[in-house]
Amino acid sequence: MHAGPSPFLDACRGRPSAHVPVWFMRQAGRSLPEYRELRGDRSILEAVRRPELAVEITLQPVRRYGVDAAILFSDIVVPLAATGVGVELVPGRGPVVADRFESRADLARLRPLDPEQDTGYVLDTVRALVSVLDVPLIGFAGAPFTVASYLVEGGPSRDLARTKALMHGDPSLFEALLERLADLALASLRSQVLAGASAVQLFDSWAGALTRHDYERFVLPASRRVLEGLADLDAPRIHFGVGTGELLDLMARAGADVVGVDWRVPLGSARERVGPGVSLQGNLDPAVCLAGAGPAEAEARRVLAEAEGRPGYVFNLGHGVLPGTDPDVLARIVELVHDEGRTDAPPGRGDPREHREP
Amino acid sequence: MHAGPSPFLDACRGRPSAHVPVWFMRQAGRSLPEYRELRGDRSILEAVRRPELAVEITLQPVRRYGVDAAILFSDIVVPLAATGVGVELVPGRGPVVADRFESRADLARLRPLDPEQDTGYVLDTVRALVSVLDVPLIGFAGAPFTVASYLVEGGPSRDLARTKALMHGDPSLFEALLERLADLALASLRSQVLAGASAVQLFDSWAGALTRHDYERFVLPASRRVLEGLADLDAPRIHFGVGTGELLDLMARAGADVVGVDWRVPLGSARERVGPGVSLQGNLDPAVCLAGAGPAEAEARRVLAEAEGRPGYVFNLGHGVLPGTDPDVLARIVELVHDEGRTDAPPGRGDPREHREP
Repeated sequence: MHAGPSPFLDACRGRPSAHVPVWFMRQAGRSLPEYRELRGDRSILEAVRRPELAVEITLQPVRRYGVDAAILFSDIVVPLAATGVGVELVPGRGPVVADRFESRADLARLRPLDPEQDTGYVLDTVRALVSVLDVPLIGFAGAPFTVASYLVEGGPSRDLARTKALMHGDPSLFEALLERLADLALASLRSQVLAGASAVQLFDSWAGALTRHDYERFVLPASRRVLEGLADLDAPRIHFGVGTGELLDLMARAGADVVGVDWRVPLGSARERVGPGVSLQGNLDPAVCLAGAGPAEAEARRVLAEAEGRPGYVFNLGHGVLPGTDPDVLARIVELVHDEGRTDAPPGRGDPREHREP
Repeated sequence: MHAGPSPFLDACRGRPSAHVPVWFMRQAGRSLPEYRELRGDRSILEAVRRPELAVEITLQPVRRYGVDAAILFSDIVVPLAATGVGVELVPGRGPVVADRFESRADLARLRPLDPEQDTGYVLDTVRALVSVLDVPLIGFAGAPFTVASYLVEGGPSRDLARTKALMHGDPSLFEALLERLADLALASLRSQVLAGASAVQLFDSWAGALTRHDYERFVLPASRRVLEGLADLDAPRIHFGVGTGELLDLMARAGADVVGVDWRVPLGSARERVGPGVSLQGNLDPAVCLAGAGPAEAEARRVLAEAEGRPGYVFNLGHGVLPGTDPDVLARIVELVHDEGRTDAPPGRGDPREHREP
């Protein structure tokens, strides 16, 4: 099990660390050739259900890149699928739900999660991983709103029109739906931490589609139910979304130790919005990696410069690794962040920026 | 031709008006039954090329809703298509380009627009419209970046990965592409104003996918080339994008009289960001209209309250009317905005808010 100093956990807690820590959303799977070879023609959900595969897929990027954290190979729909909701991950499209959530009667299809019974394979994977990893393992779940959007839309959607129509057309039903999904996420995250995960990330990928008003009324209470429900555990809580520039303060208030920031908001503005005591994670545009190592390194340096060497920052992409990303580019970014990313008072050394003064 | 007082033009110029003006992006076409009947099985581009149809489609929403401005029935790809770039509007998908823009050689496929020669039908439509309309006509064009994204991606894209890869991989080629597209937009907009349009809107629908840094380096100079090139004409310039909260100040600086704001940014924050002397347009979430008249009216009232009765505000959706929107809901919103939307010093009457004091 991971023990000893961790730049990742230090940054999550706002403490200075030896170097700026880095990991990548979707580092496990997708663009790695060793992943594609290992998974073969199994579906993602099949691979998740086989701990020996899920362990190996989780470890692959840690070995290859030397990142500062591992993230469990799983998917945000796993608890839904495990409780009997028909959902598939369609390649090139995303989660597709067989029967859309449309009315109050559909609430009956959502039953509570019994983590050991329903997702024992996930917990077996977590336990096996923490026995071999020498970096922290991040567990995760889909946030109530984002999971609700897949249930209501039936799949990925550009404008979340059905979701918003239900939210405004039948607010109390929407609240009831989010409450159930909050309990699902909370049960899953608690079980992952109790099995050994060192930190958790709550993915509210599509919350950025909302007005502040709707976020505050509908989403904040549900996400707070999840994040506050983890407050007694010693695991930093990362709260992530895309296009959430206007919501960063609210996402912090939901009970986050770390708020994810996509590439749209400069880190300095993001820091002002989340306020003191909350760390940041992000904010390299994943599309830049497709332009090759040179442009990606230049952008990574720009992001590091905007982090200003302040503690409480985890380098990451602003969203997941895009399909087609060259793993060598990601490897170069890890090297660069480790070599050049400093925090103000790294333990045992002076501020390296002093040495650059003429 | 439109003459006399116009609440829409007053608001664009930051002047108080008798009521808050309102129009809807995509008010012409899409969700109107009379539009679907008139267009029949013609493609959108075919309908655009027939002035008698385009005139009638432009007028339909003005008659039905009593909005304060008409917007030309056309499409942002019209100048591209008119100069020989193979592009189609695929129903349910959007613009699809036959041969993607990939290398410097593709620049040769982009020739300058001769508005009368290439898009005489658009100008015929404008001239016919201004002879019958009693509200201002808004002309429009696609902004260089958004049009470039369709050329580079080959169609709509969730992450604009190819566009950003080209931007960072070959910056000078990308700049050359945007410069050509700026000239295309400018030529088209100038011709529309000279034919009688009272205002123009530059649609940079996907600029919100960019970092501030990329926007400032690549997009701002090109969009400024368009907007500043219209400065000598007496037509307010509206600059619109989605998810552009972090870019609003830059979009104003590009030379806009009015900046479009989607629903993510509260109007008060938007006003701070664009600074004095620039009007705002937006910011009702179009998805709310799908929930029915009650919820849509409640949200419209919330938006009006956030406008605080200050002059320089045009009520609109934060993006286009969604397919499936009930026209009656839009009609109710127009009524509500006209009845309840006031600016601080409407000509010839006191501040109506005074009458609400106890």
